[in-house]
Amino acid sequence: MEYVPRQEIKKRIDNFQSHLRERDLACAFIFQNVDVFYFAGTIQTSALFVPVEGDPVLMVQKSLDRARQESPLERIVPLKNLYHIPRTLHDLGIYPSGIAGLELDVLPAYLYIWFQDVFKQCQTEDVSDSIRRLRMIKSAYETEQIKKASIILHTGLTEISGILREGMTELEVDGYMGYIARREGHMGIMRMRGWNQEMTYVHVLSGKSGSVPSFLNSPQGGEGTTPAMAQGAGFKRIARNEPVEIDYGAAVNGYISDQSRTYVIGQLPEIMEKAHECSKKILMLMEKEGRPGTLCSDLYYMAVEEARSNGFGDVFMGYGDSQAKFVGHGVGLEIDDLPLLSHNFKSRLQQGMVIAIEPKFVFPELGVVGLEDVYEVTSSGLNRLTLTDQKIIYITPEAN
Amino acid sequence: MEYVPRQEIKKRIDNFQSHLRERDLACAFIFQNVDVFYFAGTIQTSALFVPVEGDPVLMVQKSLDRARQESPLERIVPLKNLYHIPRTLHDLGIYPSGIAGLELDVLPAYLYIWFQDVFKQCQTEDVSDSIRRLRMIKSAYETEQIKKASIILHTGLTEISGILREGMTELEVDGYMGYIARREGHMGIMRMRGWNQEMTYVHVLSGKSGSVPSFLNSPQGGEGTTPAMAQGAGFKRIARNEPVEIDYGAAVNGYISDQSRTYVIGQLPEIMEKAHECSKKILMLMEKEGRPGTLCSDLYYMAVEEARSNGFGDVFMGYGDSQAKFVGHGVGLEIDDLPLLSHNFKSRLQQGMVIAIEPKFVFPELGVVGLEDVYEVTSSGLNRLTLTDQKIIYITPEAN
Repeated sequence: MEYVPRQEIKKRIDNFQSHLRERDLACAFIFQNVDVFYFAGTIQTSALFVPVEGDPVLMVQKSLDRARQESPLERIVPLKNLYHIPRTLHDLGIYPSGIAGLELDVLPAYLYIWFQDVFKQCQTEDVSDSIRRLRMIKSAYETEQIKKASIILHTGLTEISGILREGMTELEVDGYMGYIARREGHMGIMRMRGWNQEMTYVHVLSGKSGSVPSFLNSPQGGEGTTPAMAQGAGFKRIARNEPVEIDYGAAVNGYISDQSRTYVIGQLPEIMEKAHECSKKILMLMEKEGRPGTLCSDLYYMAVEEARSNGFGDVFMGYGDSQAKFVGHGVGLEIDDLPLLSHNFKSRLQQGMVIAIEPKFVFPELGVVGLEDVYEVTSSGLNRLTLTDQKIIYITPEAN
Repeated sequence: MEYVPRQEIKKRIDNFQSHLRERDLACAFIFQNVDVFYFAGTIQTSALFVPVEGDPVLMVQKSLDRARQESPLERIVPLKNLYHIPRTLHDLGIYPSGIAGLELDVLPAYLYIWFQDVFKQCQTEDVSDSIRRLRMIKSAYETEQIKKASIILHTGLTEISGILREGMTELEVDGYMGYIARREGHMGIMRMRGWNQEMTYVHVLSGKSGSVPSFLNSPQGGEGTTPAMAQGAGFKRIARNEPVEIDYGAAVNGYISDQSRTYVIGQLPEIMEKAHECSKKILMLMEKEGRPGTLCSDLYYMAVEEARSNGFGDVFMGYGDSQAKFVGHGVGLEIDDLPLLSHNFKSRLQQGMVIAIEPKFVFPELGVVGLEDVYEVTSSGLNRLTLTDQKIIYITPEAN
């Protein structure tokens, strides 16, 4: 079991406290397990109090022993339940007042209402965007974890080419990919922050499945097996000469990597091969143009322009109303980390960002083709962390 | 693709509207995807307005086409984004006032704050408990879905006994179970409502792994692969003569079934065999005593008493501080559905409830043994929906 290094946690808390100081906040209360993990190194049931100065206090409901083992924080105290937070802090001589930061994007309303009721001497402000922007810049340690997850993805994407056969259902391929991921050490969940957003950790979409729009903010969605989980692999059997797009995620020590490749048993229609080449061209363009200082929205528009000039503007990142307005997204503890390479994300690339770039083309009724790879932003430009060759993976059909 | 029958949706809305009437609420706004699915039959990005009288309005952001295909509701209208809800309702001549119900247990604070700001003429009340109590009573259709999920579990729990071998990692077994579940049609996610609660859909815990406490409110937790997902299978290799507890979930058309069985390569220590027998005795006791009218907390205390009288009180549902104070939980669209068979859940069993009962025994350092099965409450008592024989599954070790 690897724990988050003490220096990592110290630096994150320091950065967050500087930020609280800049915004004139007195403190923040961190409740969401992913954010608690980021600042404390544990997801045991707990709440984290971060004062603008001094040591944070991790209050742990369950399991205290594990939290003490996992977290390098100095002040870790037992907590009966969340409602005992005021008393627990008072016992330590801490009486929060002034402006307190809360994660208003994810904190359930009942906890917010309760907080306002018991901490009457505090005003509250949203710190979710601040936390997400801190988390957007990865340390060398964090990038290392994403590299480890990328090795799992490479193993799965390589191994599956020996397993994929005509007549298999998408679900069966999905199951194999999940099996490989777990066998290789994927931690078993892929977290997403957005309200009501959720994802299976593989999308296997063959032929027309790839062109079914979904509620996800992503180029492809898939039909799934039921309206209750309306995405991803379904009961469709994989046929010859149609694209099989596999979008694959895995996480190590919390950190997600995310990659897609296009498979085909037999041959693809020429137009889809051309679109796939365009996907490669867009990644090369992003590699050329992406460096600290590049505006995220500029990268998105360059990608759109490249797709258009190759004749694929209408099918880039979806078609019609369901065209997604981005070409990449941050990855880290959540698969919807910042930044976004989207039309309206006006921040600039910074060293330490890690971004999945996924130029894909969705052809109505025919399916989806394209690449997705993960890059870190270094001082000299984009450095690819995912390992698999950037080409269509052809599988020879079995003789009948 | 199976859609939720029109009559189901109609009855759910009718029941909810009766409930709104009883509580003098003018309407409710349903935002969470599981609840939207329950009342509308779709999880496309949307919000559902339910007036105390008259047709509900499903406002859909993405994908409108799929929502119209999936939902039998009559009034389905496009929605630009959540912030356009007031305008969208006004365009239909709807001006909400009076008391509006909201799902305060899951609704993010920022949406709650926004709601209060834009619907100034509404007061708000929490309707989450009401929705959970409506959802607690399953229709014949819903029970049928849980039966389908139970067939998947039976297939997996049976097939794995031919795959389990000494030296395999827990992760590899977990991967196989996931593969089988998906191949057989598991929808790919197992939803949990509780704040910060999350689960992988299999827990494979061998020997001492089964005795590691976790943040989950469950008898066993496991170490997992990382503090970032501190539960479930880990890198430990499965050895002879130790229990391998497999807790397995799958979902069909939204509905979850949940089952556990104990495997062993070779033989178990006698005390663990006895504890497993006690697990069976507790299930038999629950079957004998559970019927409409039985107090949920009484069932829990009967189980505790049976464990005690067999000499296993100290290890029932965990040990020491991490002993869980329940023996069963509802299953349905979420794995933490109501009711709870716990010390403080004072409701009575009602016909139509579906409950996973999981008497388990956790021995420090040795591991966890026990059964988990799903039952529906019928007029004449408990009827088991899960199919696997209620015994330890012995696997003959391979010759060296």
